[in-house]
Amino acid sequence: VTDTPARFANRGMSLEQDINETNKHYNATGKAVIHKKPTPVQIVNVDYPKRSAAKITEAYFKQPSTTDYNGIYRGKYIDFEAKETKNKTSFPFGNIHPHQVDHMKQVLHHGGVSFFIIRFSIVDETYLYDASHFIWWYTEQTQRKSIPKQHIEENGHRLAIKYAPRVDFLDIVDHVYYS
Amino acid sequence: VTDTPARFANRGMSLEQDINETNKHYNATGKAVIHKKPTPVQIVNVDYPKRSAAKITEAYFKQPSTTDYNGIYRGKYIDFEAKETKNKTSFPFGNIHPHQVDHMKQVLHHGGVSFFIIRFSIVDETYLYDASHFIWWYTEQTQRKSIPKQHIEENGHRLAIKYAPRVDFLDIVDHVYYS
Ligand SMILES: [Mg+2]
Ligand SMILES: [Mg+2]
Repeated sequence: VTDTPARFANRGMSLEQDINETNKHYNATGKAVIHKKPTPVQIVNVDYPKRSAAKITEAYFKQPSTTDYNGIYRGKYIDFEAKETKNKTSFPFGNIHPHQVDHMKQVLHHGGVSFFIIRFSIVDETYLYDASHFIWWYTEQTQRKSIPKQHIEENGHRLAIKYAPRVDFLDIVDHVYYS
Repeated sequence: VTDTPARFANRGMSLEQDINETNKHYNATGKAVIHKKPTPVQIVNVDYPKRSAAKITEAYFKQPSTTDYNGIYRGKYIDFEAKETKNKTSFPFGNIHPHQVDHMKQVLHHGGVSFFIIRFSIVDETYLYDASHFIWWYTEQTQRKSIPKQHIEENGHRLAIKYAPRVDFLDIVDHVYYS
């Protein structure tokens, strides 16, 4: 549970905001239906004051068992995780949990589209990176606990940052998964 | 926000538990990947005590903008809402929000599978009821704020309660959406 405070602290970070804005745009224009899942919380105590909203007074962060985002696009199930890193040369496995990786494997197995959106925040570069590449690095080698940025540059797809939608990842998804 | 305390109170109810067990079974056997979304919560304050887990000390329930469950089955996006009612003769619209209904419309529009699982708890009958029927009652008539149980009996599909999986709704989904 040690990474969950960080997870909460991350909530205001710009990649997530960019993607949320982008999904709002997609949902509003009828292009796709994609939502961020709520942060999983274990609720322990709730007060029910008269005449006002129920107040949660004790709760704890839980480890997510799936990824950040899922939904439907062009008839396909779409599922992805967004991660920002300050690392300049590699994408560390850091707070990616084995059950999240299992989840991605299962999504691929069932014919869904599964990927990461990775932002290297120091250089402000954002990539779409297919889950199958990630899974290889995570499970098929034991030498390193990260993926070289160069591999992501070569095998991922750079996302341009625009005004609206902010990160038009479906434009890339069209090329990668529907052509 | 007035229905959210009830929503929290409902968390221990048996339909949701039955479906969660069923999804665990589906996930474990590789049949489908379906998860319940976490209850959406607006976090206002978090304490970070030394040497122990971050504690949320103030938070509020938010209205869900989507449905309870989604995932992938046989390559299709699947999305549904589970509701229990104590009403004996009809299924009241009660705490179903317009944006949840919009969400279901959009899922259908994009080619996804969308339905309700409705339990009439007094008589202990559980039905799978396609979202298109629900949407008709919710948006195309103004006479009533509920759906007659008889319509659900005739146009829905009764779900048997078994040992494992508890409510084998994919068995019905096979017949209704894949044949
Ligand atoms: Mg993330
Ligand atoms: Mg429900």
